[in-house]
Amino acid sequence: MFDAVAVLGAGSWGMAIANLLDAGGRLVTLWEFDAAECERLHRLRTIPEKLPSFTLTPSVEVTNDLAGAVAEVSLVVLALPAQRVRSVVTRVKARLGEVAGVVNLSKGIEAGTLKRISEVVVDEIDLPPEKFVTVSGPSHAEEVIRDIPTTVVAAGQSVQLVESVQTVFSHSRFRVYKSDDLIGVELGGSLKNIIAIAAGIADGLGLGDNAKGALLTRGLAEITRLGVAMKARAETFAGLSGVGDLVTTCISKHSRNRHVGERIALGEKLPDILSDLQMVAEGVETARSGYELSRRHQVEMPITSEVYRVLFEGKPAAEALEDLMGRTLKAEIWQ
Amino acid sequence: MFDAVAVLGAGSWGMAIANLLDAGGRLVTLWEFDAAECERLHRLRTIPEKLPSFTLTPSVEVTNDLAGAVAEVSLVVLALPAQRVRSVVTRVKARLGEVAGVVNLSKGIEAGTLKRISEVVVDEIDLPPEKFVTVSGPSHAEEVIRDIPTTVVAAGQSVQLVESVQTVFSHSRFRVYKSDDLIGVELGGSLKNIIAIAAGIADGLGLGDNAKGALLTRGLAEITRLGVAMKARAETFAGLSGVGDLVTTCISKHSRNRHVGERIALGEKLPDILSDLQMVAEGVETARSGYELSRRHQVEMPITSEVYRVLFEGKPAAEALEDLMGRTLKAEIWQ
Repeated sequence: MFDAVAVLGAGSWGMAIANLLDAGGRLVTLWEFDAAECERLHRLRTIPEKLPSFTLTPSVEVTNDLAGAVAEVSLVVLALPAQRVRSVVTRVKARLGEVAGVVNLSKGIEAGTLKRISEVVVDEIDLPPEKFVTVSGPSHAEEVIRDIPTTVVAAGQSVQLVESVQTVFSHSRFRVYKSDDLIGVELGGSLKNIIAIAAGIADGLGLGDNAKGALLTRGLAEITRLGVAMKARAETFAGLSGVGDLVTTCISKHSRNRHVGERIALGEKLPDILSDLQMVAEGVETARSGYELSRRHQVEMPITSEVYRVLFEGKPAAEALEDLMGRTLKAEIWQ
Repeated sequence: MFDAVAVLGAGSWGMAIANLLDAGGRLVTLWEFDAAECERLHRLRTIPEKLPSFTLTPSVEVTNDLAGAVAEVSLVVLALPAQRVRSVVTRVKARLGEVAGVVNLSKGIEAGTLKRISEVVVDEIDLPPEKFVTVSGPSHAEEVIRDIPTTVVAAGQSVQLVESVQTVFSHSRFRVYKSDDLIGVELGGSLKNIIAIAAGIADGLGLGDNAKGALLTRGLAEITRLGVAMKARAETFAGLSGVGDLVTTCISKHSRNRHVGERIALGEKLPDILSDLQMVAEGVETARSGYELSRRHQVEMPITSEVYRVLFEGKPAAEALEDLMGRTLKAEIWQ
């Protein structure tokens, strides 16, 4: 099953997954969109700035030829920045319509259209929805490459395809649970990055573990509210792709989104921070999309709103935090 | 309202709360059960081994006289180790029956009887249940004394008393939400300490943030299952006293329970660790009680069971972790 797999995107996560699938006995082709970067990857078999201790397994084929990468595979894995997904899949539209499955690893929402990745892919290439699976959960690449135990969830409409993906991705140190709540899994993975920016702001302002626990609780609640308004199931946000990923992202030194928040709180400007980063901080675009979704669905999202104001309207981080902490005393849940 | 308050127990949390109530304008008497310790506290106004940077506000009265401490107050705050609550309240039974409210801060379950603190107090002193409130949530004393923002929840049967407690305890840097799910708030605060021990074991074994996110997710799920079986509301475990306190305890360097797990994983023996600690690690007794409750209510609690086996049956921590990670691949939630 799925003897040959293409992984599109040679960022940290794409490379980690390429090695994982290779270890599971698949023939893996890894596509890097930038020709010069691809040439360097051929030579070095790693990206020293991203994953210094990592080496791509020799049998993973690296290519800059997108059509060639997907030509003879039955499974295509998208490990792209969320805002790049549409342009990449459009280029191999006809071929993607023929594969047995498309697995998405990106965590984001398309700017402007406010579409989830599954909607982008299904819209753009007329993929039957049951051929789409998202794999999400607490899974920093920096740990997966070191074989540190990691647990994720695969979600899709077709139980057969989800179980196949579960089998193909599973490894003694990488466990894959399954879910049929695709919307919930996609939203949890995306929206948690907004809360991670807020957690970074809290870190930058010198707040402690008590506040972080409270922030995550309130963040989980507002993400869940939006998810339910968008027809996800509340329970999904209590799972690995919800609270699990939220916790990991908000505490990890590997999280770019948390890092962005921390530097914002220390007074740096967003464009300066972003131009420094080696990688995409998905949470920045997601803060804008999440804010727009909260307005569209009329869901109260105080943390998302404050992160939006700090990132895009120049509101001082300390003032945003005061406004969050200063809300009227009220019932947490009082029936 | 509640002009005079007695705080029973001069551990870190008792001292932090004594200062907080004093700052809110209450006349506070702090009772320390050990005469020699009380004498030292009189002199030093702190416990250097516990909170080196802290000083009790001069107006807080410190006493070793329990009957005197509660003689003229309208509110009694219990900041005692969970296993000490029954013996202390019994000594001032008649007087406690007359006060307007008893606020519990302890997070634990009575060994043997498997009773929550509210049950112990109500049973033992015939307190009308509506006079009891529990304050719980992510609130390490080490941060509260430094005025780092903290948010907790007050839960009880009487909305009037809960709102009074909310007013008395609130401070610009200490926010109090309210809840009417006393069972859920008590269980969340107690059971999370078992998961904190498991998180410490994971830390000690060198696991990373991915695994910690997964462990917290699964831990929250099993605590919630037991809570629901014991007539708590599931939503409470998604709140400050559930996931909020769980996150804080599992990531904090201040958590004694996490610390116990870490040292167990490094091969130390439980009696040696406990004899070293300056304070009570509530999670150790709670692991036993939680394990017994899971059997009584026939609720599957894999993490609690493994922590129990490691602490009390000598199971090697690495083996317990393998057993947790090695469970059959299954649906996270599949409707």
